[in-house]
Amino acid sequence: MPLTRKLGNGRRATVDGGFSLCPDGTVTSFANPIIDAGVTGLGRLFADRAVTPVEACQAYLSRIDGLDGALNAYVALDAERALTDAHASAERWKSGEARSLLDGAPIAVKANIAVEGLPWHAGIGAYRDRMATADAACVAKLREHGAVILGLVNMHEGAFGGTTDNHWFGKTHNPWRHGYTAGGSSGGSGAAVAAGLCAGALGTDTLGSVRIPASYCGVYGHKPTQGLISTEGVIALSWTLDHVGVLARSAQDCACLMASACGAEAELAQVIAQPATLETLRQSPIAAIDWGGRIEVEPEVARAFERAVQTARAAGLTVEMLALPDYDFDEVFHLGWLISAAESQVEHAEALKSDPGGFSPMLHERLALGASANAADLARGYRRAAAIAEGVREAMSPYAAILMPTTPQVAFPFERGEPAPIPYFTAMADILGLPAAAFPTGATPEGLPLSVQALAWDDETSLGLAELLGHPPGAPPDYRG
Amino acid sequence: MPLTRKLGNGRRATVDGGFSLCPDGTVTSFANPIIDAGVTGLGRLFADRAVTPVEACQAYLSRIDGLDGALNAYVALDAERALTDAHASAERWKSGEARSLLDGAPIAVKANIAVEGLPWHAGIGAYRDRMATADAACVAKLREHGAVILGLVNMHEGAFGGTTDNHWFGKTHNPWRHGYTAGGSSGGSGAAVAAGLCAGALGTDTLGSVRIPASYCGVYGHKPTQGLISTEGVIALSWTLDHVGVLARSAQDCACLMASACGAEAELAQVIAQPATLETLRQSPIAAIDWGGRIEVEPEVARAFERAVQTARAAGLTVEMLALPDYDFDEVFHLGWLISAAESQVEHAEALKSDPGGFSPMLHERLALGASANAADLARGYRRAAAIAEGVREAMSPYAAILMPTTPQVAFPFERGEPAPIPYFTAMADILGLPAAAFPTGATPEGLPLSVQALAWDDETSLGLAELLGHPPGAPPDYRG
Repeated sequence: MPLTRKLGNGRRATVDGGFSLCPDGTVTSFANPIIDAGVTGLGRLFADRAVTPVEACQAYLSRIDGLDGALNAYVALDAERALTDAHASAERWKSGEARSLLDGAPIAVKANIAVEGLPWHAGIGAYRDRMATADAACVAKLREHGAVILGLVNMHEGAFGGTTDNHWFGKTHNPWRHGYTAGGSSGGSGAAVAAGLCAGALGTDTLGSVRIPASYCGVYGHKPTQGLISTEGVIALSWTLDHVGVLARSAQDCACLMASACGAEAELAQVIAQPATLETLRQSPIAAIDWGGRIEVEPEVARAFERAVQTARAAGLTVEMLALPDYDFDEVFHLGWLISAAESQVEHAEALKSDPGGFSPMLHERLALGASANAADLARGYRRAAAIAEGVREAMSPYAAILMPTTPQVAFPFERGEPAPIPYFTAMADILGLPAAAFPTGATPEGLPLSVQALAWDDETSLGLAELLGHPPGAPPDYRG
Repeated sequence: MPLTRKLGNGRRATVDGGFSLCPDGTVTSFANPIIDAGVTGLGRLFADRAVTPVEACQAYLSRIDGLDGALNAYVALDAERALTDAHASAERWKSGEARSLLDGAPIAVKANIAVEGLPWHAGIGAYRDRMATADAACVAKLREHGAVILGLVNMHEGAFGGTTDNHWFGKTHNPWRHGYTAGGSSGGSGAAVAAGLCAGALGTDTLGSVRIPASYCGVYGHKPTQGLISTEGVIALSWTLDHVGVLARSAQDCACLMASACGAEAELAQVIAQPATLETLRQSPIAAIDWGGRIEVEPEVARAFERAVQTARAAGLTVEMLALPDYDFDEVFHLGWLISAAESQVEHAEALKSDPGGFSPMLHERLALGASANAADLARGYRRAAAIAEGVREAMSPYAAILMPTTPQVAFPFERGEPAPIPYFTAMADILGLPAAAFPTGATPEGLPLSVQALAWDDETSLGLAELLGHPPGAPPDYRG
């Protein structure tokens, strides 16, 4: 069932074979074209009647059944409803009444986002038996577009961390290396997308929680403009910084998921569902961050970033280095940490009182900052974050976007513990509220994914850069079959 | 020099004689028509060449010289520059190049607002020798419109209170009764306007600080929509709740001052400088708050409120009682207090460290809450305030405005100390960010001013209701001459 689709930037790729290029030139992809098709590719297969939504749903459920035991991406499955919804979708495609290109796409949802009838716990023990009685706004929107929700995926407890080594629900492994972190806090989303256990996933991003697992797992992760996707029905880490975002195996798929989850007016959705074209991207200069030794970045990550900049220039884009000398990566990280601790304490106030044992020692320790810091510290934090964001906006004003590494490091073994703070590069987009898309740029010689992100004024540009410069590492060897 | 002006609502009043009606029917006004003319009336006198800006400036300076010793409204005079500016204004009026109706109007500025070359201290001892090197944005805008700045007026220390019993700059007395508070925190603004020691004044309002002195002193006080007048150059009490507002002896004057201070585009300023007409006000129902015994309101204040409601109905407006059963006046007051304490601590962090003795024990005690409360308390406070505001907006949605008393009590003797929290009614408009205009409704049999406020969706409506229902107590006996 070969199907050629034209990418927004003029490149071509076949959805039956994928276009995954490893640094050594080896093309790798999933053996199953249903899995390889991702989100929008599946819609085209459905439209061509090459595959039905029921077959797609069964293919994913079967892979979860066979492969998730070791990976531990899922914390709850909704197989029965998924199949029912897939049947309904199949009927719609059959009668020419498909609701969108997403109709029938099997999607995973992060465990802090309410899915009717499934647990709603944010990876926190205290809530593990609480059932969601209604869908979160973003899930409801996806369902309106025909999405099939496969189940809930694991996350860092309370979304307050970047490794998804969860005290209650276990470690989610990296599909590229068992025993390595999938990143977090949307670790289950990143792992499930990379391993081909869903076509795309919802995640949340407060200081980088969508883009970090996208980076470690070698997939695309987009944090949209703040507020574009409603956070209604999401257990907050920080209601002032939280964003709902999307993870998928292409920028086009991210765009389609985002447009479907945000419930924008039809006309707007049409626009944001399309990454900017190469022609558009060539019209404005973009910046590339020169962090100048201020933070420790692994050499492979720095090289991948340089390659992305070269690729952009080779594609005809004007790329200028931007130092942001006043931007203190460590300060912003700590501001985000303080704001998250204070707001999370409020979010969990009742449970912390009634069931303190339902929070791990790690989470207790992180939340404690919300009580040890005083009110003036937090007031200062909000003001400082706003002032820093204003400074970045000013420095960014001549550019359409800023390129930077997604994470200072590639995935690491759980037992090694966290290296330099993982969200050093990602937190910037959260305090700005601006969209940022993380995209894979191949893998290290050891086979661990590399990633760069594009922070932009608008979602089309960040996604357009992700599509132009993204270079997927393909399918993880253990999950190709 | 009789001059008849048509009010927006169709009433007529002569600016030479004023239209101040005491409850007993006695018309009282200032003996000097220059003082009686207020802001816009003066502009008309200037246009008619009946008076010059220099004469007006001299008249006000002379009154300040003679009357402010006992009142203590002013903390700094700028007589030399005022006269220079008045001369320049006179030249403009003479050559037909007046910049606005406000050109040449003698205005007082609250001591937390920067006026180039004058002290900039917010009534705090630690800053008493600090000179402002530039005008605050709102002062610069007033000067662009030709205003003559007479000087700085006293305030509650740090804007953190409602009595203007200032440790460093003394008590500002109520023009209606020596030994009674003028209210606060813009107590000097209220007293100076009521006593005819300026044509109008700038104040700031965080939980009610413009409207409270307007209430106690029997003048009009308008807190515009948040952000309409820039707070740049204002020493913050709470940068999330602070508003710059205006005080004057008529709603028209407030509208003119507001439009001139906000620097809106000419077209917008034209609109907001006009209180809504009676015809417009009749088109939508308004609400009147039924506080139902939840807070203690002095019987005279409650009666004045009932009379205002009756007056509104007699004018053909539809007024419905609104109970707001979920609104907790005390909770909102305490939320505002916490947010102010935390943000003020940040605002004054350096001085608190370098010169702790420059803050009174009262202010130290109030600021301490910002250190004794923890970060989570403040995060909860911001969220709770936003949720309460949302609730009020919903309850308010069928109405164009809500009428309520401005303060639960009339002015009281300094030695009696604060009764029930003064900002119980005023804080609502601050957490909503919506405009609210306090207007006088006569005086008690003991001669103390009464006040009602109109909280509305837009500034024209709140000012229009103030103009329609306002009933000034006239000129205070000791300040008529």
